[in-house]
Amino acid sequence: MGMKKIFGMDRIQHELEIAMVPHKVVDEISANSQQYVEELAEFLRIPSVSTESEHAADIRHAAMWVAKKLGKLGFQAELHETARHPVVFGHLLVDASLPTLLIYGHYDVQPPDPLAEWITPPFSPSIREGYIYARGATDNKGQCLTYLMAMEALLSVTGRLPLNVKVLIEGEEEIGSPNLGQFLQKNRELLRTDVIAISDGSQFAPGIPAITYGLRGLCYLEIQIQGSNFDLHSGSFGGVVANPIQELIEMLSRLKNTDGIVAIPSFYDHVLELPPDERLEMSRLPVDEMQLKKYLGVEQLTGEPDYSIMERKTARPTLDINGIWGGFAGEGAKTIIPAKAGAKVSMRLVPNQRSSAINEQFKSFIRSIAPSTAKIQIAEMHGSDPVLIERNQPAMVAAAKAIEFGFDKKPVFIREGGSIPIVGLFKDVLDCGSILLLGWGSPDDGAHSPNERFSLEDFHRAICSVAALFYSLEECYRT
Amino acid sequence: MGMKKIFGMDRIQHELEIAMVPHKVVDEISANSQQYVEELAEFLRIPSVSTESEHAADIRHAAMWVAKKLGKLGFQAELHETARHPVVFGHLLVDASLPTLLIYGHYDVQPPDPLAEWITPPFSPSIREGYIYARGATDNKGQCLTYLMAMEALLSVTGRLPLNVKVLIEGEEEIGSPNLGQFLQKNRELLRTDVIAISDGSQFAPGIPAITYGLRGLCYLEIQIQGSNFDLHSGSFGGVVANPIQELIEMLSRLKNTDGIVAIPSFYDHVLELPPDERLEMSRLPVDEMQLKKYLGVEQLTGEPDYSIMERKTARPTLDINGIWGGFAGEGAKTIIPAKAGAKVSMRLVPNQRSSAINEQFKSFIRSIAPSTAKIQIAEMHGSDPVLIERNQPAMVAAAKAIEFGFDKKPVFIREGGSIPIVGLFKDVLDCGSILLLGWGSPDDGAHSPNERFSLEDFHRAICSVAALFYSLEECYRT
Repeated sequence: MGMKKIFGMDRIQHELEIAMVPHKVVDEISANSQQYVEELAEFLRIPSVSTESEHAADIRHAAMWVAKKLGKLGFQAELHETARHPVVFGHLLVDASLPTLLIYGHYDVQPPDPLAEWITPPFSPSIREGYIYARGATDNKGQCLTYLMAMEALLSVTGRLPLNVKVLIEGEEEIGSPNLGQFLQKNRELLRTDVIAISDGSQFAPGIPAITYGLRGLCYLEIQIQGSNFDLHSGSFGGVVANPIQELIEMLSRLKNTDGIVAIPSFYDHVLELPPDERLEMSRLPVDEMQLKKYLGVEQLTGEPDYSIMERKTARPTLDINGIWGGFAGEGAKTIIPAKAGAKVSMRLVPNQRSSAINEQFKSFIRSIAPSTAKIQIAEMHGSDPVLIERNQPAMVAAAKAIEFGFDKKPVFIREGGSIPIVGLFKDVLDCGSILLLGWGSPDDGAHSPNERFSLEDFHRAICSVAALFYSLEECYRT
Repeated sequence: MGMKKIFGMDRIQHELEIAMVPHKVVDEISANSQQYVEELAEFLRIPSVSTESEHAADIRHAAMWVAKKLGKLGFQAELHETARHPVVFGHLLVDASLPTLLIYGHYDVQPPDPLAEWITPPFSPSIREGYIYARGATDNKGQCLTYLMAMEALLSVTGRLPLNVKVLIEGEEEIGSPNLGQFLQKNRELLRTDVIAISDGSQFAPGIPAITYGLRGLCYLEIQIQGSNFDLHSGSFGGVVANPIQELIEMLSRLKNTDGIVAIPSFYDHVLELPPDERLEMSRLPVDEMQLKKYLGVEQLTGEPDYSIMERKTARPTLDINGIWGGFAGEGAKTIIPAKAGAKVSMRLVPNQRSSAINEQFKSFIRSIAPSTAKIQIAEMHGSDPVLIERNQPAMVAAAKAIEFGFDKKPVFIREGGSIPIVGLFKDVLDCGSILLLGWGSPDDGAHSPNERFSLEDFHRAICSVAALFYSLEECYRT
């Protein structure tokens, strides 16, 4: 019975030495796997959509659900009110001499639309072929619960945790965590920790567990150009009036050259070149270029010629125009010189670029190339600094061991091309460099999409990994 | 009584010699001015909006109104059905040895919206401070009727017209005259003429009557670029996937240099340089640059440095991006690499550029600079060839004399920056080079805008001018 059989694992014969994980804990996890899934389903039934105000009661319900669960585990847990949705915070002090682990997650979810595309309703969890389908399954309720379930098993078998644990589950991640920074600032002492674990992402590919050690940063700006007072007849005025679309595209075309190299002066000044060993490691990651092109529907990939696909996607800075508008975009023809035009431009940053400095470089470059006729406004939309976590630090080694224990496979170390702004927050505000980004999900889980799902095998393996992580972390901080 | 007194004109002492215009005709026009305005108001009350199918009955009503009016003048007039709205055609053969004048106009009007901005309802003509306000007042019912009223006065006083006259009033001008070409093709014999008169524009400025001898042509194209199959996360794919907006703007930025000179190879090959005498004449047109900049709300005018404002606006070819789109244009930030982008681009052409050739040049230039990753579609939207009418030909001289007679002022000869596709049609299909573009309106009449109006003084002066035109044309073709 239990997951052990289902997934054909036999922990007792497992070769990996994490001496401290009692076999009984693994047995306990396997024995209770059905119950964990039922609890996850219960959590998933709460439509805690953070962006829609009609779900305010559901949000509170989900927060209470988490706090209650923590309370059952012996945590001192409570809701901390913010300007919008409460943060659930709980802590369990085992022994002041032990290291402390802070677990971050979020109980809020994305809106489920388009509803018509769901095979089963988003808030009526359904199990099909080894997956649980529901909004929030992978992002983030399923991944979040792995920590609570692992602690439940540990406590049930051993009566105590090997570490001090703090749990912070917020309710605003899907709306950009607007109040988390203030919460962290106000509670720095309460949140003091040695390690932070975040499982809000995915493995490298199905069956290839990963530890993320790099995130790109982001600068996102909007440019608007105002020309004449109103749209003009291009017959009457074509030839004498500056066209804001023309001005805009002339400037935009100078931001990047055709090799994909960003042309803003000093843009690369602080970019850390990839060391040879890291490039070698990245080159070993399985990347199927043919399959990627097929998935994207493109005949060629592009970008900086001197870098590999993985390097370009995750470890090199880049610039993209995310949107552009101006003039007549309807059906047919309208012969106007538009009064205004605009674009959204964002840059992905890598260590040691700083979002604030790049914003300034961008704006001053635009000003330097702007035609004298142009009335330009540039707005900074949002940004975050890139993150690079030391791969060889003890906490990372401990996490790798724990994942190998849970997944029967050594994890790969990867950088991600996207940004997770809260990671920068944790790093800066809590001054904690040991952040473990352990994605339990899979890239094909459909986070933010209809029919979001989470593999029950991954759920089980992740719970085992978390149990192992408690011991491996304790061990590495002890030695 | 009558307009003569109102506008302080005294035709009897008029110095200009158009010997053949009987004084009695001018007196007749003055005496009937009130009645002409009433008839115009009656015509304006018919909401003959060609683009809206619920006005089909009004369209027919307006066509019948014109045909009936022509019938009363002794014309053999009838409605010719087309695929949509009928053409009214009438002719009055005076004497086979006399020259023939073909008059073109249109009885359809633009939609009146935004309705809320009209001071009085668009189809309830209202007279205020010397203007008649209604949709169609200047475009084109008022201008059109000047010909019918002038003929009525001539016939009433003299019993016959000095010329053979053909009248073609269509009902689809405001929707691009889609069926006029076929009508002309099918009725070339019926329409055979020596001169064509079109009054569907305006004077150079209030109080400065004009004859238009040049029109720019037009090429209008739409470019669409398809990138990946769907919008991509710019974090996950930024750096390896071509961005269609980037590809688009790179190409668009190469169409024109910063001096406003079009960079498409061979674009200027067939452009006739302006002869010195024409440049001199254009330089004498009153252009108030300060006022123009204030009206437009711009600090500087732009364009080819070696040409004057009037030259750049009307006698030089140009290129404008009329619209651009792609990606996310909403509020806030969305970090995507869009799947597609597009733009509408049009070029104003001058003699002897040809729309079909420029279309080909444009497309082959785009193809030559397109990145290999781009999947591009280019659609030709519509186009027309530029028109240049010999200024020194007898019909032009005759028209200038007639206008001077009616307006007490020599007209200026101008080129217009816009395009009137029907002019090219007439030129090509009817093989008639004597086309008189005699705008009776004023640039501030608000054609296509709320509170469209037509000056009653211009209405009266134009009727006198048309009466004189019959004689001056007859005279010039006789000698």
